[in-house]
Amino acid sequence: MTASPWGLDNLPYGVFSRTGGETPRVGVRYGDHVLDLAGALHDEVFATGSLNAFMARGSAAWRDTRAVIRNKLATDPAAVEPHLIPLDRVRLHLPIEVGDYVDFYCSLEHASNLGRMFRPDEEPLKPNWRHLPVGYHGRSGTVVVSGTPIVRPSGQRGAGVFGPSAKLDIEAELGFVVGGPSPLGGRAGRFEDHVFGVTLVNDWSARDIQAWEYVPLGPFLGKSFATSISPWITPLEALASARVPGRAQDPEPLDYLRRAGQWGLDLALEVRLNGEVVSRPPYREMYWTPDQMLAHMTVNGASLRVGDLYASGTVSGPEAGQRGSFIELTWNGTEPIKLSDGSVRTFLEDGDTVTITATAPGPDGNVIALGEVSGTVNPAR
Amino acid sequence: MTASPWGLDNLPYGVFSRTGGETPRVGVRYGDHVLDLAGALHDEVFATGSLNAFMARGSAAWRDTRAVIRNKLATDPAAVEPHLIPLDRVRLHLPIEVGDYVDFYCSLEHASNLGRMFRPDEEPLKPNWRHLPVGYHGRSGTVVVSGTPIVRPSGQRGAGVFGPSAKLDIEAELGFVVGGPSPLGGRAGRFEDHVFGVTLVNDWSARDIQAWEYVPLGPFLGKSFATSISPWITPLEALASARVPGRAQDPEPLDYLRRAGQWGLDLALEVRLNGEVVSRPPYREMYWTPDQMLAHMTVNGASLRVGDLYASGTVSGPEAGQRGSFIELTWNGTEPIKLSDGSVRTFLEDGDTVTITATAPGPDGNVIALGEVSGTVNPAR
Repeated sequence: MTASPWGLDNLPYGVFSRTGGETPRVGVRYGDHVLDLAGALHDEVFATGSLNAFMARGSAAWRDTRAVIRNKLATDPAAVEPHLIPLDRVRLHLPIEVGDYVDFYCSLEHASNLGRMFRPDEEPLKPNWRHLPVGYHGRSGTVVVSGTPIVRPSGQRGAGVFGPSAKLDIEAELGFVVGGPSPLGGRAGRFEDHVFGVTLVNDWSARDIQAWEYVPLGPFLGKSFATSISPWITPLEALASARVPGRAQDPEPLDYLRRAGQWGLDLALEVRLNGEVVSRPPYREMYWTPDQMLAHMTVNGASLRVGDLYASGTVSGPEAGQRGSFIELTWNGTEPIKLSDGSVRTFLEDGDTVTITATAPGPDGNVIALGEVSGTVNPAR
Repeated sequence: MTASPWGLDNLPYGVFSRTGGETPRVGVRYGDHVLDLAGALHDEVFATGSLNAFMARGSAAWRDTRAVIRNKLATDPAAVEPHLIPLDRVRLHLPIEVGDYVDFYCSLEHASNLGRMFRPDEEPLKPNWRHLPVGYHGRSGTVVVSGTPIVRPSGQRGAGVFGPSAKLDIEAELGFVVGGPSPLGGRAGRFEDHVFGVTLVNDWSARDIQAWEYVPLGPFLGKSFATSISPWITPLEALASARVPGRAQDPEPLDYLRRAGQWGLDLALEVRLNGEVVSRPPYREMYWTPDQMLAHMTVNGASLRVGDLYASGTVSGPEAGQRGSFIELTWNGTEPIKLSDGSVRTFLEDGDTVTITATAPGPDGNVIALGEVSGTVNPAR
């Protein structure tokens, strides 16, 4: 029997409440159950509505807690059984209180594709792109958990043109949850002491709003209406077998951006539109790795807080079927996607559901699943 | 005798602790004293380290509380006297827990000046500028209270060039503190039901880092190392006599940006370098008014949270002595400022102290002071 992708090698953290009004609390997913950690570990840090208090204990506590949970599940099933709740009897919540949310732009192919479309008369990549991981701050207050309906945003789509976005899109990304803070005026230390785990991110994007507003200060309302994340935060330790060196870089990055510890990640993403796979973005093809993003984000002395979230930017690989956004998959709507029911899509229509999933190699040839991030488009108000 | 600029018509809110380790709590400034509100009003909502819990009560409570405080101070000085603490015996703290921080770009002159310097071969204003208040998200975790030392940031200043910023600058701005939330997928309502008050903002900026990094996604590390705000939040009601229609706009803004209620503000800012006035930016000259910024920020369905902060962007007026940043005052360093001691400045040097103050007209020909925002530059680490 193949090991479950939600077995002992995975154990992602989330926040749940039992159907019927219990206040949210922290659990780990194990198979098709949630383990109630406050009950199983007799620790009130888990009887709160976010992972932040637990994360604030630091990376040694993260490792120890994971070891304790694994041990209990493996060796004393009878003791934990009363604290295992079937997934279909819980509601999942946003797992973290988000501090700052930063979105990067780390795929060479995504940045090149968007450059070609948004600035057809220029070099696709700006001169800085190969020298630093380009990023910007997004809106942390509109980070929502998977399953939250996405209301189609309205806004300006050009001079004097106002209305619902006609180019509603997704960006399939990987997000990194900061559990270890750093001081103002200092820099981040080791990646694994700051980053607690990863989550899938859908950075919903209104391309028509974005294209009109984004010069010169960057994307704003074209992104800020919603960003969805998975309810499950996969701890870094569960990704040990997914670690790869990361894509070759030219020119050689500056010292502060030198990679340490192989934090390229061999994750296979899938993007589904109404259940049908439309793209398979390979995370291992990303140009900038998450340790580089972290080093860059703090090199100017910016502090980190527990709960900060940063995302990779759209994961797009070199092949056409590996692009993580519809603007790329349909080349700004000029090459519609054909779906199996005979219909076509350029950008998203009301009622469409987009679901992003991912897997990683586990330690024994098995597979680890990341929590999916899904959302359905509701009509504009 | 002239009325104090910190009298009954002002009464800004802040968070203080008595020298000697008391936990921070909410007060209002009255003359050279702080009124301890938890003590004076017997209300535990003020016995917390930020204004957020009080702000969450809503705009009716803001008005009622202000009326009660004014009445007590005016009619029953003996009763409040035990709760008045001399300013020189308290420490002032960051007054709010900042949710999201958005920075706009609302001065026609500032946007034009920067366009001329950063993009000399193009029209200074981008095509969108007169159609919408351009803005972007900044880093809320590095918003600090006035007096916090500012460590000179390091970063990339060009391809392969790394080191301390050689173009450290300020931006003199007005900030708006959101006390009334709005739902995801909805829009903000009346300005005065969402915005609790105003604060002076210094959006410290490293121009060399910013110029290299900011395409195409906007400013990031050139700004995220620190943003200083005043310890005092001036309630909107104290600015009643400062309200003006706002500068004429051409073209006519779209419906959702139509002004309501005269939220142009006749504030006179002063920027001091090491005590010497170097600029007097007039807030009333701003092109986009704060009610327009609020409407724009939420037109796409983005929610507001208690504690969100948004700022106007650099306040620069039409005259040379009214520019709110050194990059403008010195035209990117090409026209140094002469100081009274015979020295000159282009950008900031280590040890420099920048202080921004402002006044507004009060109800009886008197003057209201805003809390100053000040910071001293420390050497790079």
